[in-house]
Amino acid sequence: MELLDGKRIADEVKQEIAAEVEAIVKAGGKTPHLAAVLVGHDGASETYVGHKEKACSQVGFKSTVLRFEDTITEEELLNAVADLNNNPDIDGFIVQMPLPKHISDQKVIEAIDPRKDVDGFHPVNVGRMTIGLPAYVSATPDGIIELLRRYKIETAGKHCVVLGRSNIVGRPIANLLSQKAYPGDCTVTMCHSRTKNLAEITRTADILIAALGSAEFVTAEMVKEGAVVIDVGITRVKSDKTKSGWKLLGDVKFDEVAPKCSYITPVPGGVGPLTIISLMKNTLLAGKGAIYGK
Amino acid sequence: MELLDGKRIADEVKQEIAAEVEAIVKAGGKTPHLAAVLVGHDGASETYVGHKEKACSQVGFKSTVLRFEDTITEEELLNAVADLNNNPDIDGFIVQMPLPKHISDQKVIEAIDPRKDVDGFHPVNVGRMTIGLPAYVSATPDGIIELLRRYKIETAGKHCVVLGRSNIVGRPIANLLSQKAYPGDCTVTMCHSRTKNLAEITRTADILIAALGSAEFVTAEMVKEGAVVIDVGITRVKSDKTKSGWKLLGDVKFDEVAPKCSYITPVPGGVGPLTIISLMKNTLLAGKGAIYGK
Repeated sequence: MELLDGKRIADEVKQEIAAEVEAIVKAGGKTPHLAAVLVGHDGASETYVGHKEKACSQVGFKSTVLRFEDTITEEELLNAVADLNNNPDIDGFIVQMPLPKHISDQKVIEAIDPRKDVDGFHPVNVGRMTIGLPAYVSATPDGIIELLRRYKIETAGKHCVVLGRSNIVGRPIANLLSQKAYPGDCTVTMCHSRTKNLAEITRTADILIAALGSAEFVTAEMVKEGAVVIDVGITRVKSDKTKSGWKLLGDVKFDEVAPKCSYITPVPGGVGPLTIISLMKNTLLAGKGAIYGK
Repeated sequence: MELLDGKRIADEVKQEIAAEVEAIVKAGGKTPHLAAVLVGHDGASETYVGHKEKACSQVGFKSTVLRFEDTITEEELLNAVADLNNNPDIDGFIVQMPLPKHISDQKVIEAIDPRKDVDGFHPVNVGRMTIGLPAYVSATPDGIIELLRRYKIETAGKHCVVLGRSNIVGRPIANLLSQKAYPGDCTVTMCHSRTKNLAEITRTADILIAALGSAEFVTAEMVKEGAVVIDVGITRVKSDKTKSGWKLLGDVKFDEVAPKCSYITPVPGGVGPLTIISLMKNTLLAGKGAIYGK
């Protein structure tokens, strides 16, 4: 059993991006510039945006955070998005979710210029990814793909079972891994809350991707000997064994599943560290005009 | 075993659309208007466009065909698309594929205003469909959904196996049937040329959708007793038993598979007749501004 070390891969990719940015700037090119829109003062959102700023600085990007109070109207926020769309110095930007209830997430997502939509949530990017065209792929599925690629895990003809059909993980990774590509060419089964005989299906998986958000849902008896297991879940539970009084659990009962696997992601330290890296990759692509041209 | 009679369902839906158009016009509303762009003189394309015109007249739509010689440049065709985008009388339009080799299909598809893209091939419509938002769904997957719905076939929790991962059939139907909806909520497995142990997988299918384009590929031993089988394939083969010297075969070996099924589509007369109906449904939606507003 080998651990899929997301932290190590993240560092590796970060160094590659930093080297590329340095070369671009050296050649007289523009420094890629990522902006983040942050509405309100949600603790988790503040943390995420902080991590993104830090990653930008590590790879040599310019970064800007636009902060708004949660009293901002939908129209005002849409205007801010339009300003970012029209600002030639901004290569890509994200609007940190969730937004206050009086603002429609979907309306805001669709207002972002697809060429600057480095979160990959705009229907144009989802559609392009689905039909196999170059697109900004959203962070978690792209992170999984990166992990499979860097560990050179064989995927063609493998049966990949995806647990969860969310628009941000399950569905896009199912679409990606069934593409004629590497990593891809998998036979993919997408399971969800309505699936019957779930364990029977998961036991046939060469690659099992758990993205349910249900702590320790996947047990040893659900996993085939030699499977590759990717755990996307993160649930915070109380613990009397940690200083903080909390610990993070994945969707996989790690201790009993790991011995059966050929590869498995730890939680934390698996897919998680790669999500911010995917945002950096997309921003670099945006800066280069690699998807939609300059 | 019951036949899924696409011809009968198509007539049924056509009558419903005709009644709705009549009511709209009676109330002083605008007659929905579908335009088709036809480049060159390909026989099959001429036939398809002819069928579409006929269907328009049957449901009470206005229809226009714009014909161009296959010497038209890409730029000229893109200009024609722009004109249609800007023409307020045209509610929806299609560009009949395939186009001459010197013109990029994808460029033309992406030039169509998504609000008028009644073929549902623009990435915006693909993306919206993928994430479960209202969208123009393309003809074949929409036809399959209509068939399942009209025959009230139970889908929730069923295992649906899709053979084929094309962007016009396999992939969209896999995405649709895994949505939280009816018909939908299926556990979906998408198989393709790289799939191993195919028969083992198809034998677990409650609903089997064959969209490979490989005549009589699916045999009785690949099908579970009681399965619903939807055959999307149409291959023309020589025959000494028909007057024309040709016959049409589906992807399913009908004679041996049918006795095992609860429901099965004939070929022809299954999904086929519903594809033009889906185009009519989308044009009606476009006329009403039901997806993107007026």
